[in-house]
Amino acid sequence: MKTLPSILITNDDSIHAPGLRALIEAATGIGELFVVAPENPQSGMGHAITVTAPLRFHPIFSDNAHQEVAVSGTPVDCVKLGEKIIMRKRPDLLLSGINHGSNASINVMYSGTMAATLEGCMSGIPSVGFSLCDYSHDANFEYAIPYVRDIIQKVLKHGLPDGVCLNVNIPAVKGEELKGYKVCRQGLGSWKEEFDERKDPRQRDYFWITGRFNGYEMDEDTDNWALANNYISVVPVKFDLTAHQAMDHIKKMTNDVE
Amino acid sequence: MKTLPSILITNDDSIHAPGLRALIEAATGIGELFVVAPENPQSGMGHAITVTAPLRFHPIFSDNAHQEVAVSGTPVDCVKLGEKIIMRKRPDLLLSGINHGSNASINVMYSGTMAATLEGCMSGIPSVGFSLCDYSHDANFEYAIPYVRDIIQKVLKHGLPDGVCLNVNIPAVKGEELKGYKVCRQGLGSWKEEFDERKDPRQRDYFWITGRFNGYEMDEDTDNWALANNYISVVPVKFDLTAHQAMDHIKKMTNDVE
Repeated sequence: MKTLPSILITNDDSIHAPGLRALIEAATGIGELFVVAPENPQSGMGHAITVTAPLRFHPIFSDNAHQEVAVSGTPVDCVKLGEKIIMRKRPDLLLSGINHGSNASINVMYSGTMAATLEGCMSGIPSVGFSLCDYSHDANFEYAIPYVRDIIQKVLKHGLPDGVCLNVNIPAVKGEELKGYKVCRQGLGSWKEEFDERKDPRQRDYFWITGRFNGYEMDEDTDNWALANNYISVVPVKFDLTAHQAMDHIKKMTNDVE
Repeated sequence: MKTLPSILITNDDSIHAPGLRALIEAATGIGELFVVAPENPQSGMGHAITVTAPLRFHPIFSDNAHQEVAVSGTPVDCVKLGEKIIMRKRPDLLLSGINHGSNASINVMYSGTMAATLEGCMSGIPSVGFSLCDYSHDANFEYAIPYVRDIIQKVLKHGLPDGVCLNVNIPAVKGEELKGYKVCRQGLGSWKEEFDERKDPRQRDYFWITGRFNGYEMDEDTDNWALANNYISVVPVKFDLTAHQAMDHIKKMTNDVE
């Protein structure tokens, strides 16, 4: 009998999120599932790890090929704890998501979903992060599930290059057809922050971060373009942040003697 | 009279950290300083932003060319709030640090210091993160200050390419000589996590993340090598995480029809 691949599953919207349930549904039957997810929502946590407090976890569910554990920490904590304490072995695959909301363009930098994916990648695990471009809690994940399942099977079959993981974003189509995959690069974008300034009952100022995202780079090889045109964007992502193209400028600068 | 450049300064060890004081000392006289730093230590916060609670800040210090504000949030919150609410203009330069501890190699991914730097970069501000490879609170920053000041002046003179910031790490030399700058790439490394497993008084398990870092890639063009050989490592860093070299593999994979 062939052993099923072991799959570590996490997210950043918490173990109670519908997007996580959709990801579990997509992976069911493909492997032995270890769901290790935050007990509370962790949106915007980026690559945070918990170093000033201890971590705790508690089992939620368990049967033959599927167990679930809720963790008191961040998505990256879940990956570390999942691999080292809960599974006590390196998983064959790491899946993160399905996030409620886009992680395309520069959102990869803020995303707990993609931080967990990059953490798996740094640990040598083939890793894929999935996001649906719909922030609502009751987003419709149904039409995404067959594509997610297809990508899981393809990554298990083909593997991923060393040091590379995937950032998969699925457009929020309303009745239109998905056009399939588009392998693309991270397009430029920016958040226009509009802090919501308020006064508390003691007349002291406080501020909510809010804002509107603008994925303004729309070249046909960007994820911004793919999503605007009803393609599923697939961006190969790496954790080597070196800007090789800037080496000469910086060398010239540091050698400048006044 | 020439206007001084405006400089936004932040860090992740909090507004009370000696490393921040060293950075302020290095920048004094060069520009108008806006110090906007977390009121509490934020180590390991990565690129986290605060979206589930409001932000508050309070002034700490102010004179003609130097004001300081403590913020209830993360380093990235400090950059957003600093630019949009406290300065109400785009600064000419962003400085982050001096961090107590190395942010070389893959530590750039976990680092609040470098997250603030990348946030500045995404906002179009020339941005530099500084770290001293000594985690102790009473680390000696004295010998680092002239180099930090020199880099600040060089970046103001030469600028930085669009979408590129700097990750500057200063080795912890004990009596030896610093050999100057080495412009280099992010070397490979890994954390060997060794969770510290304990039981609370009610006999329930809890876990502290601990571990030992190993910057194992030691080619002469890496930051690992530079620091081990008493050079200040200067890595040009970008927020485009696209793994361009993996495009062909991923295109082949997604086109695979069973």
